[in-house]
Amino acid sequence: MRGKFIVFEGGDGSGKTTIVERLKKEFPDFIFTQDPGGTTFGEHVRALLMSEDTKNIDVRAELLLFLASRAQLISEVIRPALESGKNVISNRFALSSIAYQLYGRERPELLQLYKSVSDVLLDGVLPDATILLDVSPEVGIARVHSRPEEPTRFDLEAIAFHERVRDGYKKHIAEFGTPFIIDANKPLEEVWQKIQEAVQSAL
Amino acid sequence: MRGKFIVFEGGDGSGKTTIVERLKKEFPDFIFTQDPGGTTFGEHVRALLMSEDTKNIDVRAELLLFLASRAQLISEVIRPALESGKNVISNRFALSSIAYQLYGRERPELLQLYKSVSDVLLDGVLPDATILLDVSPEVGIARVHSRPEEPTRFDLEAIAFHERVRDGYKKHIAEFGTPFIIDANKPLEEVWQKIQEAVQSAL
Repeated sequence: MRGKFIVFEGGDGSGKTTIVERLKKEFPDFIFTQDPGGTTFGEHVRALLMSEDTKNIDVRAELLLFLASRAQLISEVIRPALESGKNVISNRFALSSIAYQLYGRERPELLQLYKSVSDVLLDGVLPDATILLDVSPEVGIARVHSRPEEPTRFDLEAIAFHERVRDGYKKHIAEFGTPFIIDANKPLEEVWQKIQEAVQSAL
Repeated sequence: MRGKFIVFEGGDGSGKTTIVERLKKEFPDFIFTQDPGGTTFGEHVRALLMSEDTKNIDVRAELLLFLASRAQLISEVIRPALESGKNVISNRFALSSIAYQLYGRERPELLQLYKSVSDVLLDGVLPDATILLDVSPEVGIARVHSRPEEPTRFDLEAIAFHERVRDGYKKHIAEFGTPFIIDANKPLEEVWQKIQEAVQSAL
């Protein structure tokens, strides 16, 4: 039997990483991954994407880099895991490309490019459920700046950018399996309660 | 007036780099570039593509990485140069993706993916002429191994791979401007003579 594929999405500072760390303890037999990244190749791409050297690159180049990382993640990790019956949880996936590159960067005309590549890459590997940690940009960015790590170049985008990302998430979430939208402005324990219900429902 | 765009293509060890170095002295006012690479972002991608960490990656991931580098190269270097009336010479370009990823790696079904992305990236930036340094794999690979530099993971592919690349080059060269096919098995000075004629004709 094919495993279930659950994706966590949400703006920067929405709490995805904290939540996914908790789920790792809850479900030690699941495969956990992240997009971009999740493979040796993908982690190199991720480092490049987050670095200053990709600041101001062409949005098509940025989108293709995310797609390259995802191609490898699907073929090396996600597809084999699902086919062997394992459940997979990913921190971000394809919906992020739509939210960040098409909406955040205001390039809706790239939807066709995104779709023609994605159809080839995904080839049936679509999430069974996508859980969106919906956070207001003000709250999310305040959290990012309270962390010990350096913010990425995405974190440093203007509030208006993050508003557009949030809008993109909500408009397209239904294309990525059963949608769950959780108010992530609430305190962590309240969010965690909702997450557990959503994950159980998705399984 | 728009500048001319001339591309050098050819298998590993065909002499492209040597020839391009000579042309730099001949045409100091031309813009010279290389694909992959040619921009800060592209050089990072190039280093990643040539490294051992991308050995055995999914061909779609490999193709998308080349396309990401090319997207940036076109928008940052080639298009602005041509539009400002400068002539551009590139060491490799889009034809290499067809030859290496589709033919070399025997993935003809990726032509559709390649085309749908390329149409968006190129957007009118096509070579005026493509000069193919046509070399037999045996001769090319012998040259690669006589160089002081370490061979790349592409250089180390089997002879059959390089035969398929050569076949792909010849089958698709006519899609990339006026085609010039030069026998690069000949000694350098003979090849150089033909190159000069081809470049003059292309200009």
